[in-house]
This record gives sequence, structure tokens and C-alpha cells, in this order.
Amino acid sequence: MLISDLDTPAVIVDLDVMERNISRMSDYCREHQLLLRPHTKTHKIPELAKRQIASGATGITVAKISEAEVMHDAGINDILIAYPIVGPTKTAQLARLAEQARIGVSLDSEEVARGLSEAAASHGTTIGSLIEMDVGFERCGFSDEADLLALGKKIADLPGLEFRGLMFFPGQFTVGPEERAAMRIQVNDFLKRTLETFSDAGLPVSIVSGGSTPTAYEGGYFHGVNEVRPGTYIFNDRTTVAVSACELEDCALSVIVTVVSTAVSGHAVVDGGSKTFSYDRFQGGDGTGFGIVKEDHAAQVERFSEEHGHLNIQRSERRYRIGDRLSIIPNHVCTTVNMHDEIYGVRGERVEEIWRVAGRGKVR
Amino acid sequence: MLISDLDTPAVIVDLDVMERNISRMSDYCREHQLLLRPHTKTHKIPELAKRQIASGATGITVAKISEAEVMHDAGINDILIAYPIVGPTKTAQLARLAEQARIGVSLDSEEVARGLSEAAASHGTTIGSLIEMDVGFERCGFSDEADLLALGKKIADLPGLEFRGLMFFPGQFTVGPEERAAMRIQVNDFLKRTLETFSDAGLPVSIVSGGSTPTAYEGGYFHGVNEVRPGTYIFNDRTTVAVSACELEDCALSVIVTVVSTAVSGHAVVDGGSKTFSYDRFQGGDGTGFGIVKEDHAAQVERFSEEHGHLNIQRSERRYRIGDRLSIIPNHVCTTVNMHDEIYGVRGERVEEIWRVAGRGKVR
Repeated sequence: MLISDLDTPAVIVDLDVMERNISRMSDYCREHQLLLRPHTKTHKIPELAKRQIASGATGITVAKISEAEVMHDAGINDILIAYPIVGPTKTAQLARLAEQARIGVSLDSEEVARGLSEAAASHGTTIGSLIEMDVGFERCGFSDEADLLALGKKIADLPGLEFRGLMFFPGQFTVGPEERAAMRIQVNDFLKRTLETFSDAGLPVSIVSGGSTPTAYEGGYFHGVNEVRPGTYIFNDRTTVAVSACELEDCALSVIVTVVSTAVSGHAVVDGGSKTFSYDRFQGGDGTGFGIVKEDHAAQVERFSEEHGHLNIQRSERRYRIGDRLSIIPNHVCTTVNMHDEIYGVRGERVEEIWRVAGRGKVR
Repeated sequence: MLISDLDTPAVIVDLDVMERNISRMSDYCREHQLLLRPHTKTHKIPELAKRQIASGATGITVAKISEAEVMHDAGINDILIAYPIVGPTKTAQLARLAEQARIGVSLDSEEVARGLSEAAASHGTTIGSLIEMDVGFERCGFSDEADLLALGKKIADLPGLEFRGLMFFPGQFTVGPEERAAMRIQVNDFLKRTLETFSDAGLPVSIVSGGSTPTAYEGGYFHGVNEVRPGTYIFNDRTTVAVSACELEDCALSVIVTVVSTAVSGHAVVDGGSKTFSYDRFQGGDGTGFGIVKEDHAAQVERFSEEHGHLNIQRSERRYRIGDRLSIIPNHVCTTVNMHDEIYGVRGERVEEIWRVAGRGKVR
């Protein structure tokens, strides 16, 4: 089958580029003695998680218990759920998983720790725990080393829990180089203080897990970090390019669409909108636009309806005709893949693989 | 099963409210002699489409061939695909559908008309055609009555096509009452000119199909309109409330979520983000925020990560605890439902129905 045989919209992944992305990250981590634990929320495809592991990843990261189950069912046995697990249904599921695999979770409260402990203890198993630090993104985690130590001590005392260390998500590192440099100094100060606090208290921190594709290649710059959890790097996207974490030619994923209307002057409509691409905003430049048209950089993906992609072609020299096929690199690959039941691995013009997005819809 | 038995995040629909919404729209249309053809992209659930038909709808609207197939497989036989159908794969699918059901499509080009005609003629069937008018949303359609008539004449001459009339989507009617009033005058002028042009040319226009929940109850105000295609009204959402098309108590759908982190001061994190709600922006007020917390209107749904909902609770008097369950009305129900494989119909505290979102992921 050829790409031209695929009906649109269709998500395709250039296998050569994807394989290069996987190797580059593995090589970097090997060279810098960082454990690599890719976040598989980007693809939600067990087959791709296995390729990341075959290339050197120590295990994987997921966000939800149900995603962890999908990955474990496919034979993956070292999984970090980088999310606080709350409620008896989920903690029981987690404890069952922990009976069969090496399972870690992140958390930032005694309530979550107690829930996990009860479930693990009642199943006679152990759940590894990383306490989340808030290094400036203000989502989850403590921003004070005393809070981190207090929870670490509680976890160390609770049955069924193993205190493994610390994790953070530097989600705010999507800005320019000067701001990033200033942020890095602050994060490193916080990491140093925290590690000294734990050391003084005699509580060993075996893992310090940093995150995210934009900062992955800076893993070595963060004090004490010995594991990274990048996700997007396997495909990359418009935002990854914008934050200088890759070049345009490192974008492996695009969405093939067809022009369906040119009736409105200066515009063309393609057959994919927010239900094909997601509506995630651009984390770079002036924040506008929803993708890069590979065949015509002058075209702007101006807005989405649910099933219509609105291209502004006023600055374009290309002539748009109904039936034309275009490939669009999305703002955010993780949420794009999540809209689809299957995506296609291509080499040149050939479709070599069809992957089911087995973790799609696993919201719990 | 009770709502409290559902693990989160879970999408629930209050059946009493939904049934009232269905009846109200049917009654309005009956009273104003408008055909009602609900857009089922909102729910993508055949069972709900059938209830809309049982309440008086003449047929349904969908956006994609694959959605039409799902609805037809469930026994629905009058379907408008309000989307230009391009390419031999899709036109063949459409012609096969048209052999078994009353099928209409919208279009705005001779290229699309010719493709449909060839497929219909080769299958010995007939496809109904509505030409799309651009009444100001600048997405698809012609804004000049001469262009509309020219395409109408071509369609009337092509084998396998039946020219049925005109359709438009007034997507720009999400603004304040004064702007809407001015818009309505323009739309009506355009409709009058167009209908006169067709009448003078002797080409009968049997359907004039207007759209959208925000304007559905104004169907009678649009000149010549005899059919409406609202979608959102079955559930309603934060945007429908903002554009005064319903009251807050008419919102049937909400997402039950659990608080998983309160570590960051002034904030609480719930276990649903853009992969649970979608990232559609608010089409009202200052455009910020991503939902209404039913239990605490002072809380702001400030931003989403993929699996984290960031609540700003600085102005809230409620005390947030890990494990608390909240219900959030999303900005846009259509894209929220589309994230889920199943949703729940509830009455009071009881879960009465579980619906599979059979059309989810039908992007082609």
C-alpha cells in the first residue's frame, strides 16, 4: 500500500525519522548516564514503546492506570505512572499491576500515600514512590524541601510503599533561551537544597527523574537528575521545533488531508479539524496557528472547526484545487494521535506498518 | 449502579434535562413548521439519534461518511452529510449508502458535484444536493447568488444528482444581541436575493437549511428557512449558555472528576485534562476558562494539561480535599463526548444507561 492509497485524514509517521529520533535520545542518555523512561502518552502504542525499550529505555512512563494496563498486557514490565492515583478502584488496579510488574507512581500528598499503602499491603505487594517537586510549572508537587522531606519520611514508614526518590515536570521550559537559563539556575538551586535535606535526614534518594522533550537534552544540566521522561521526541511537532528541541526535518508525524472547498476567497478548507488534530495551541512564537503545511509554509492553519481545517492562503503562491492532498505537522502530536484509532508507519511512499492506538480513550 | 460508583473521569448526562432539551426543540420546530434535522456530531450515539427522530426530527445530519455509516447501520435512513465529499473512496461509499437510504450532501464546487454524479450514476442511485451559502462565517459556501445559481444549474443537469436546495451554517452568531441583529439583516437580505434569483431562473428550491443551536430558536427569523440542523441543544454547554441559547439548568452533560492534588497553593488539580474535555476555547465572555464547576462557581478551570485539569481556587470559599468529586460542564460538549468510548445516562443519582459513542474516531 502507498500513502496515496490512504483515504484522508490519515496520520502517518515517517519511520526513518522516527527511528533516528529514538536512537538519538537513547544515545544521548547513554552518553550522559541518564536512565531513559519515555512517556508513552505521546503514541499510546505498545509496539512503539517496545522499540524505545529495545533502543535502551529502562522502562516507560504513562499517565493513567488504564494506559499502564494496556502496556503491561503487551509485555512491558517496568512502568512509572507519573500521576497521583486516587480512590479505591484505581489503587486496587495498581496493586494488582504491582504484583506482576515493577510499578512506580508519583505523588504529592499523604492522602495518596496512605491509599496506595493500604492497597499494596492488602495485596502483599510493593509500589515504588516518587515525590513530585514543583519546579515552577505550578501543577502538582511541593516547592519547599521541608514538605518533600516530610512526605518522604511518611512514605518510608508506610507498609507496601518503597520510597524511590523525586520527580519533576519542567513544563514551563517552553520559552526563549535567556528565560530558560534563569529558570535552570532556580531549578538547580532547589534540587541541590532538596537533595542535601534528604541526605542530612539519612533518607536515600535513588532516583531523580526530570522530564519533557524540550529539556531532555539538558538532562545533564539539572543537578542530580539521573532519569528523564521525554515523550514527544519520538515524533516531534510544531511546538518542539519552536522551542528549539529539534529541527523541522525531525518531525516524523504529519496528517494527510484533502482540500474540500476553495469557495471562500483567500481560503482553502481541508478535511481535518479539531476532531482530527485536537485544538492544542502553539507553544511558541505569537501562539497562533495550528500546524505547518509541509508543502506550503506560506499557508496558515488559521483555525479549526470540528471537521474543517481553515487554511488562510492569502500569502501563498501555490494554487489550491479541490482534491489536493497536503501534509500538516500538528502543534502537538500527543493530542493529535489521541484522536485516532490507528496510525500508519511509512517509508518513502510505502505504508509499512499499521498501528492500533491501543491506549487511546484510556482516560481513567 | 449509582453515579458514585463510577470511576473518574466519567461523562454523565442528566436524562431528565436531555429529554426536556429534545422535546423543547421538537416542539419549537413543529410550532414554526420547521423540519428538524439534528446534527448528531454532538453525541455520535445512534440510540440518541433515534430518540431525536422519535420526538419529531425528520432525519439527521452528520459531518463524515463514516459517521453516516454508523448511523445507517443502526437503522437511520434519512441522513444529510453536511460536508463536501471528495475523492473516489468516499464518493463510492456515499453511493452505496444512497442505494439504501435517503442521502443528502452539501457542496460548493463543480468538482465535488461531478465526483458525486459519477459515483451515483455508476451505482444507479440518486444523491440529494444542497448548495452551501457562506452567510458570513467564511468557511465553506458561496457569498454571491450568481455563483449559487450557476452551481445549481450544473447540479440539475448532472446525472445521479437531485438539486434539493440551499444550506448554511451561521457559525458567527456567537456574539452579543446587537451584533446578531445586524448579522440577521444581512443574512436575510442574502437569502431573499438568492431565492429570487433561483425563482427567476425557474430552479425550484425545496429546502433551505439553516443551522446551529445558537440560532435554532431563531429559525423562523431567517427568510425562507424551512429546516434547522442544531446539534449541541441535546446536551448544551458553557458556550450555549454564554450565547443565551439556554440556561445553566439546561446543561445535561457534565464530567465527573476527582481532585488528585492540592499541593500548589490556591490551586487544585483534577483528573481530567484536554484528553478528557478537549481543548476547545470558550466562545463567550472574555474567552478564558474551560468549564463550569457545578459545585463551586468561584473556581476557575484555568488550563488543561493532557490529563490534569488546573483549577484556580483563589476566589473560592470551598475547601478542596484530595478525593473530592466535582462535576464540570465543558466549554464544548461535541468535542468532549468525542474523547470518550462510552458515556452514562443518569437520573437523580442512578446510572440508567451506558451508551457507546459509536461514531467516535470516525474522522473519514
